[in-house]
Amino acid sequence: LNIVRIRESGRSCTGHPGSKYWFYSLCAIRGRPLPIMPMLIYIAYCVLVVELLIHKVPGYGDIIELKALIVPVQTLGLSLFLLLAFRTNSSYDRWWEGRKLWDGIASKSQDLGRMAVGWVAPKDKQLASEIIRWSIAFPVVAKSVLRGHGDLSELVSILPAHEIAALTKMGNRQSMVALKLTRLIQKASVHLTPAITNSMDNSVRGLLADVNSCMRIFQTSIPLAYIVHLRAFLVLWLGLLPFIFVSSMRHWAILVCAVIGYELLGFEDIGVEIEAPFGVDYNDLPLDQITSDLFTSLLEYLDELNQDED
Amino acid sequence: LNIVRIRESGRSCTGHPGSKYWFYSLCAIRGRPLPIMPMLIYIAYCVLVVELLIHKVPGYGDIIELKALIVPVQTLGLSLFLLLAFRTNSSYDRWWEGRKLWDGIASKSQDLGRMAVGWVAPKDKQLASEIIRWSIAFPVVAKSVLRGHGDLSELVSILPAHEIAALTKMGNRQSMVALKLTRLIQKASVHLTPAITNSMDNSVRGLLADVNSCMRIFQTSIPLAYIVHLRAFLVLWLGLLPFIFVSSMRHWAILVCAVIGYELLGFEDIGVEIEAPFGVDYNDLPLDQITSDLFTSLLEYLDELNQDED
Amino acid sequence: LNIVRIRESGRSCTGHPGSKYWFYSLCAIRGRPLPIMPMLIYIAYCVLVVELLIHKVPGYGDIIELKALIVPVQTLGLSLFLLLAFRTNSSYDRWWEGRKLWDGIASKSQDLGRMAVGWVAPKDKQLASEIIRWSIAFPVVAKSVLRGHGDLSELVSILPAHEIAALTKMGNRQSMVALKLTRLIQKASVHLTPAITNSMDNSVRGLLADVNSCMRIFQTSIPLAYIVHLRAFLVLWLGLLPFIFVSSMRHWAILVCAVIGYELLGFEDIGVEIEAPFGVDYNDLPLDQITSDLFTSLLEYLDELNQDED
Amino acid sequence: LNIVRIRESGRSCTGHPGSKYWFYSLCAIRGRPLPIMPMLIYIAYCVLVVELLIHKVPGYGDIIELKALIVPVQTLGLSLFLLLAFRTNSSYDRWWEGRKLWDGIASKSQDLGRMAVGWVAPKDKQLASEIIRWSIAFPVVAKSVLRGHGDLSELVSILPAHEIAALTKMGNRQSMVALKLTRLIQKASVHLTPAITNSMDNSVRGLLADVNSCMRIFQTSIPLAYIVHLRAFLVLWLGLLPFIFVSSMRHWAILVCAVIGYELLGFEDIGVEIEAPFGVDYNDLPLDQITSDLFTSLLEYLDELNQDED
Amino acid sequence: LNIVRIRESGRSCTGHPGSKYWFYSLCAIRGRPLPIMPMLIYIAYCVLVVELLIHKVPGYGDIIELKALIVPVQTLGLSLFLLLAFRTNSSYDRWWEGRKLWDGIASKSQDLGRMAVGWVAPKDKQLASEIIRWSIAFPVVAKSVLRGHGDLSELVSILPAHEIAALTKMGNRQSMVALKLTRLIQKASVHLTPAITNSMDNSVRGLLADVNSCMRIFQTSIPLAYIVHLRAFLVLWLGLLPFIFVSSMRHWAILVCAVIGYELLGFEDIGVEIEAPFGVDYNDLPLDQITSDLFTSLLEYLDELNQDED
Repeated sequence: LNIVRIRESGRSCTGHPGSKYWFYSLCAIRGRPLPIMPMLIYIAYCVLVVELLIHKVPGYGDIIELKALIVPVQTLGLSLFLLLAFRTNSSYDRWWEGRKLWDGIASKSQDLGRMAVGWVAPKDKQLASEIIRWSIAFPVVAKSVLRGHGDLSELVSILPAHEIAALTKMGNRQSMVALKLTRLIQKASVHLTPAITNSMDNSVRGLLADVNSCMRIFQTSIPLAYIVHLRAFLVLWLGLLPFIFVSSMRHWAILVCAVIGYELLGFEDIGVEIEAPFGVDYNDLPLDQITSDLFTSLLEYLDELNQDED
Repeated sequence: LNIVRIRESGRSCTGHPGSKYWFYSLCAIRGRPLPIMPMLIYIAYCVLVVELLIHKVPGYGDIIELKALIVPVQTLGLSLFLLLAFRTNSSYDRWWEGRKLWDGIASKSQDLGRMAVGWVAPKDKQLASEIIRWSIAFPVVAKSVLRGHGDLSELVSILPAHEIAALTKMGNRQSMVALKLTRLIQKASVHLTPAITNSMDNSVRGLLADVNSCMRIFQTSIPLAYIVHLRAFLVLWLGLLPFIFVSSMRHWAILVCAVIGYELLGFEDIGVEIEAPFGVDYNDLPLDQITSDLFTSLLEYLDELNQDED
Repeated sequence: LNIVRIRESGRSCTGHPGSKYWFYSLCAIRGRPLPIMPMLIYIAYCVLVVELLIHKVPGYGDIIELKALIVPVQTLGLSLFLLLAFRTNSSYDRWWEGRKLWDGIASKSQDLGRMAVGWVAPKDKQLASEIIRWSIAFPVVAKSVLRGHGDLSELVSILPAHEIAALTKMGNRQSMVALKLTRLIQKASVHLTPAITNSMDNSVRGLLADVNSCMRIFQTSIPLAYIVHLRAFLVLWLGLLPFIFVSSMRHWAILVCAVIGYELLGFEDIGVEIEAPFGVDYNDLPLDQITSDLFTSLLEYLDELNQDED
Repeated sequence: LNIVRIRESGRSCTGHPGSKYWFYSLCAIRGRPLPIMPMLIYIAYCVLVVELLIHKVPGYGDIIELKALIVPVQTLGLSLFLLLAFRTNSSYDRWWEGRKLWDGIASKSQDLGRMAVGWVAPKDKQLASEIIRWSIAFPVVAKSVLRGHGDLSELVSILPAHEIAALTKMGNRQSMVALKLTRLIQKASVHLTPAITNSMDNSVRGLLADVNSCMRIFQTSIPLAYIVHLRAFLVLWLGLLPFIFVSSMRHWAILVCAVIGYELLGFEDIGVEIEAPFGVDYNDLPLDQITSDLFTSLLEYLDELNQDED
Repeated sequence: LNIVRIRESGRSCTGHPGSKYWFYSLCAIRGRPLPIMPMLIYIAYCVLVVELLIHKVPGYGDIIELKALIVPVQTLGLSLFLLLAFRTNSSYDRWWEGRKLWDGIASKSQDLGRMAVGWVAPKDKQLASEIIRWSIAFPVVAKSVLRGHGDLSELVSILPAHEIAALTKMGNRQSMVALKLTRLIQKASVHLTPAITNSMDNSVRGLLADVNSCMRIFQTSIPLAYIVHLRAFLVLWLGLLPFIFVSSMRHWAILVCAVIGYELLGFEDIGVEIEAPFGVDYNDLPLDQITSDLFTSLLEYLDELNQDED
């Protein structure tokens, strides 16, 4: 939950977390990238290489080829780090774009509510209330589609049970909610000027387009060629490291390799983890928080509507 | 197919693929960049240089000029890697822009369907159904134009045969479908407010603009000067490598050069491959998947229409 | 305050601050990143390591493992700096996006004022004046929401006391002001063409969307995994530094480590500080200045309105 | 011509050019950056420095200052390469933005044609035909303005001779064509709904804005300070190279310097060449191809119009 | 002036300046960054350090600590260059964003003129002429606001003297011109369809928003923390340089330090200079040129109007 995240981070209204946060985040375990299997295999490999060289190869410290390996490793390293930085950047861009899209979904849902109260309610309260209810439903449905489950129980208090049941069965749920909203707006259009009607319809269009864009991020990963090529060379490069360090550091080479390995494998692991950020992982987007904030905000509009009615 | 890609990648709804995916992608062969001819030629060249130096030049390990070569090679290398990173970034940006454009095409087609059901259908079901059919046709036609073939067989169940035949013959197919849609909207405009009519016309405008932008990506490659200059120096730089490594590594130099060569040639190869991503390669955009998803979604709208009719 | 900032920076209309500014900013204390606790701990650690090695380890200057450490440290360093640069870039992008959003809020508030004077006032001065007053209220309320306090005293001269009191009690203040503006525009719509009404409603939509986007920046920090991984390696890398420098620099190593430590810890500190820029820190956005400029500008419109009335 | 470029590049519909293209582009001469004068002067300088040092300075290989020069050269080099990468990026961004703008011009011209056929033609064929003709004229006029010539002969078959003559004489041709289009739309507005009229007017607005943005790219080069500072240090850095290489490589230093010089001078040369991409160079945008494609597409609309007439 | 800049740069319509430009820009003095005071102080410091070490410290060439300094200096250097590249990028982005905003101001002013001639003039020539005059006034007023002076003499031939005098006195000039334009459009609205009226009003909204965004760039500098931290370390790093070079280069160290110092200080100086680009410096945006081009273009519309009148 985002609330938890903010509390944890100790961010006050100054926007600058204190020293506590510094040390907290240094020792955090949740959220830390932990590519356990690859790490274990790599460390086992390093131990193997280092022990074999030390115990089976007599003058391992003086092999000129081992010492010369440092040049290609540093050369490849530069290229590898630039590729990793590119990977990190594009993953983060996707994560942040996903966040912006949900920002858009929230804004448009809230806006449909605002227009329902401001423009439709003075003529037809019942219709306005229904538009607000379906505006609440859209983000919840979108979330369920992106997470690949059909759990719409959050909507129990908002929509009648038969509507929820009907939605759950459907394949393309989000487009059906959009169609429902379109029909409500079409009903409302007799009370509204064409321009206002069109604005509401535009919000529905925008909602559908934003969910489509989220699906784009979810379904289209970074070209496989980059992932595959980057991984192959990361593994190769890490595989060369113990050979370089063993001649001067002996057993310490294992520790040094493990540390470098963890940095780079973790770095790459984050890229994979945040590439499709609509799940429930610690580093994914706080979709539950976003929809629940929106829920509260739109319920306030519903209250406002009922207050006026009295 | 994208379905295949997702299954392969084992991405669950948590958005974080498991260890299996890690090892799978390490050993993947499809999607991996394989510049076979350049690699073979480069390895042959390395063998030649290394063997000649070892067997024909007596004191090759002590030539001071060979050892000093490391400085210009590292200097050039830095510049080369930055240029390669620039190449990678701009290719990926084009790939991702292409994906966004298809996102836009899908959203706009779907939206024409939604508006047809929501706004046109209550007045004229027949016309609404026709608008949906041509909205389905647009992305299929766009795909066929971008791939340079005239195969519109996907549309057999959607459009009458004579329309498909007429389309196949035309040069500028996408603009003719857009014109067809405009005329249908113009017919529908008697039932609609001007603002809603205009919104539908805007979607048609957007569809045409998105296909134009896809054509832009397809037809305009990165300035040839960059490609040519980058390639020339990549080849030159790789050509210098065996001279550097031979003095300290002897025969191992061939292996080291082959590895570095594969990393850099593969890196550059990906840039070329994803620059114009509308084909049917493994790393191209999953256009078939996108159009087929859209197909399903719009057919649901057609069903919805017929259901109401009953 | 921004005024202070400009005066301090001595920026004249040529846009090029003089030499004075150069030396001023070199010695500035306000605004400088000062991660005091981490720095103290790091320096204490460096002193400890250096003194222990010098006094307890006899031949510390000749330990080959210590000397060899330089290679992994430089390798890790490159990767660390690229990660830090990524961190800096994304923090700055968020900061600048926040500034753009407030630009948008200011423009839309001012525009509502302009339209009230230009389009509503000729028909209904009272209503126009009320729209302007609530346009002034919106940014002030938005600021109070983003800073997490309920202090709306800036609005005392603008809104009646009971409205301010009502607003202060509410949870979702910004959406209530937006609703209020919608209702005023709905009242005004009898005097206006639908297109102009819709334009005013669009401005309200935009205001709400901009505040939502500010909330996005405030609530969603950069994925925790990056922060945690970056910090862990920054600390690790800095922890290795004294071991490297002690063998050649003896006691000077402490000074060198402190300087490098300050650069990197400060660098990272700025990233954290400007990530959520809506507070009252020296490096946060000058929200007070923005709202007060807007205040002045909209009051001029109010004056203009009253002048016409005379 | 773009057609040529595609044919040359051998790009098939798979989007992945074959090996042939690889070797072709390696040896391409057209499009390759060739800063001939600077290269000749630099090589002459290198020969001079190297020969003077070898023949006039006896122990040139042992001067410690020469050997120590490598440190500042590598330090400066890193900074220089980052600056060059920045230059390359910003030039390419301008080039690609220019391409996008022309994409926009083509889309909007085509769209005016589509609307003329779809909306105006059912009421007034003559007027629709005139709108299409002037939509064809706009990009041709824009091209002639950006290239600074007054050759409008492409329009001979489209516009009456006196109109072409009048246009050729004018200074601000593009704004006159825009005005002409506005007047035609104003005439057509009696047959159209206000919203559709407005959409057509928006396209004219967009055309004018896009040409203005092209003028921006053409007239405003990257801040001269960057160009000047970058060049000064490129020259200085290259000037230091022969001093470094001569001590270990003797006469080979000339070859090495020439190669590094060509890479960097060529790199910078591309940046200059693509910064203002509206000319007729090999690396400029294929404006002729874009306008001629558009020509064909709009003529098809004209045919469509005449077909209907029959 | 931009005219001067183009002439100087010798850019022909091919977009590729000749060799002459190459050598010209190498020796240019105007536009070159010249941080004179910091340079003088730095050189004096280098002379002091080098002379003191050479004359007062006997075995300065063999102090192991001095030699070891190279490692932290290179490490810090990498981090410093990445920070400098970030600074350069963000300054250039602001500069280019400023240019785009002025592009928008020019386009919107010109568009108001176009609409006045095309839509208003057929009904009311007098009003159209007044709208054009105030459209000319807007960019001139915006320029005067951004430059912080009140000189509106450029408008003498366009607006009546009393209007200019009234404007000069006002604080928020740009919003008053926008209000004037709004009122003229409101007057014209009786002759126009609502959609066209709204389009004109949108242009006024856009003008005001663009000027607000220019004010944003002008008033909000890059977070002071970055500037301060970057400067502190630039100075520190430069301060360490003479210690490193003196042991191997003796007196030459002063020259080398001066060159590196000039590169980096100049680099940073450009970042400061183009950060707020609305002044009259050589590297600022050619605002005078932009407004005068626009002037000419809008006067042509005025002529067109008068021609029709005859």
